[in-house]
Amino acid sequence: MRLSKSAKGFGTHWEDEYGYAQAVKVDDTIYVSGQLSLDEKGNLVGSAPLDASGKICDHSNMEIQMRQTYANAKKILSQFGASLDNVVEEVLYVTDMDRAFALAGPVRKEAYGSKRPEVASTIVVTPRLAFPEQLIEIKFVAKVQ
Amino acid sequence: MRLSKSAKGFGTHWEDEYGYAQAVKVDDTIYVSGQLSLDEKGNLVGSAPLDASGKICDHSNMEIQMRQTYANAKKILSQFGASLDNVVEEVLYVTDMDRAFALAGPVRKEAYGSKRPEVASTIVVTPRLAFPEQLIEIKFVAKVQ
Amino acid sequence: MRLSKSAKGFGTHWEDEYGYAQAVKVDDTIYVSGQLSLDEKGNLVGSAPLDASGKICDHSNMEIQMRQTYANAKKILSQFGASLDNVVEEVLYVTDMDRAFALAGPVRKEAYGSKRPEVASTIVVTPRLAFPEQLIEIKFVAKVQ
Repeated sequence: MRLSKSAKGFGTHWEDEYGYAQAVKVDDTIYVSGQLSLDEKGNLVGSAPLDASGKICDHSNMEIQMRQTYANAKKILSQFGASLDNVVEEVLYVTDMDRAFALAGPVRKEAYGSKRPEVASTIVVTPRLAFPEQLIEIKFVAKVQ
Repeated sequence: MRLSKSAKGFGTHWEDEYGYAQAVKVDDTIYVSGQLSLDEKGNLVGSAPLDASGKICDHSNMEIQMRQTYANAKKILSQFGASLDNVVEEVLYVTDMDRAFALAGPVRKEAYGSKRPEVASTIVVTPRLAFPEQLIEIKFVAKVQ
Repeated sequence: MRLSKSAKGFGTHWEDEYGYAQAVKVDDTIYVSGQLSLDEKGNLVGSAPLDASGKICDHSNMEIQMRQTYANAKKILSQFGASLDNVVEEVLYVTDMDRAFALAGPVRKEAYGSKRPEVASTIVVTPRLAFPEQLIEIKFVAKVQ
């Protein structure tokens, strides 16, 4: 018997080209793909500047990208009638730990609307995300009742 | 009360030495360990060449390894009577983003047998996987009914 | 309707500052944040030495940190009446693969109390974790009945 999934997206061309869903719900669990700082057209917001070899030379836009990433997570969850309150687990992949770690407290508390979000959280550095100019990607698992 | 788990493997010596299961099912969820490009004897298929310092100097075998990795995922899921249709989430850890990102669309669509797989997907770069010659590892979560 | 979550912590100041829970349980699933080698006061046990540029120059404390990390995972799971027997999935993020891979077999078998832990396991290298002196972080998903 084929599994009954509910898949949602933003309608960006990446979803067609890569072939994936922004989020998939089965029963009471929503699995959210790594969210990033994309606008409605699928363009990166707050792109980091690159040096001549194509590597990120300035991570200052981490805050812009982190805020946009949580905004997109909120947006995709809303398609299931859910919100960031439903998140049980997040994994943050960042290109610069010191900068991301300093921002994660205030930006996340604001995004989750709580001084102590009830979320299991993991943060690790990755040398490179999907876009060369991308500083952060966050995947989520959420539960609904 | 001890949790009732169903654990499956390929019978490779790595499972004994590292001490893990290729996949574990509890209730309706299957957690699949990071799959890689191993053959039936536990040898890496499409090994990447290394330079004198032991680092990967050519990522050209990414496609071979990516295809073998999905083949192994399919194989382990079949032990539970499941298939890639049951996958709800995947995380791809790759050593070269540009190469992996270009391949992920066509290879994944073929593996999932769909132009738009209903799967939440995340892809990040890691500088090193378990084997020095390994270019990709993919973990999965699948749901059954 | 607000989701009913049970969130637990160790009471470290990091939980307040970063704004997260060490673990969150919804229904029969426990999502455990990336555990690390912290003592009861929130200080890193077995800190790695850093070179002048702030990078890890010696990974010899991997075993100390790995053991302490599993001890902390056990501790947080016990707050839900669970143990490492309940773990279905783990992801190990390490700064040195060769060292971590060689230790993972014996240390994990001892921690799980089994020659063949029934756990789906994934291990990848990350160039940097939350603390500059940190060598390993492990996230877990556990199931209870």
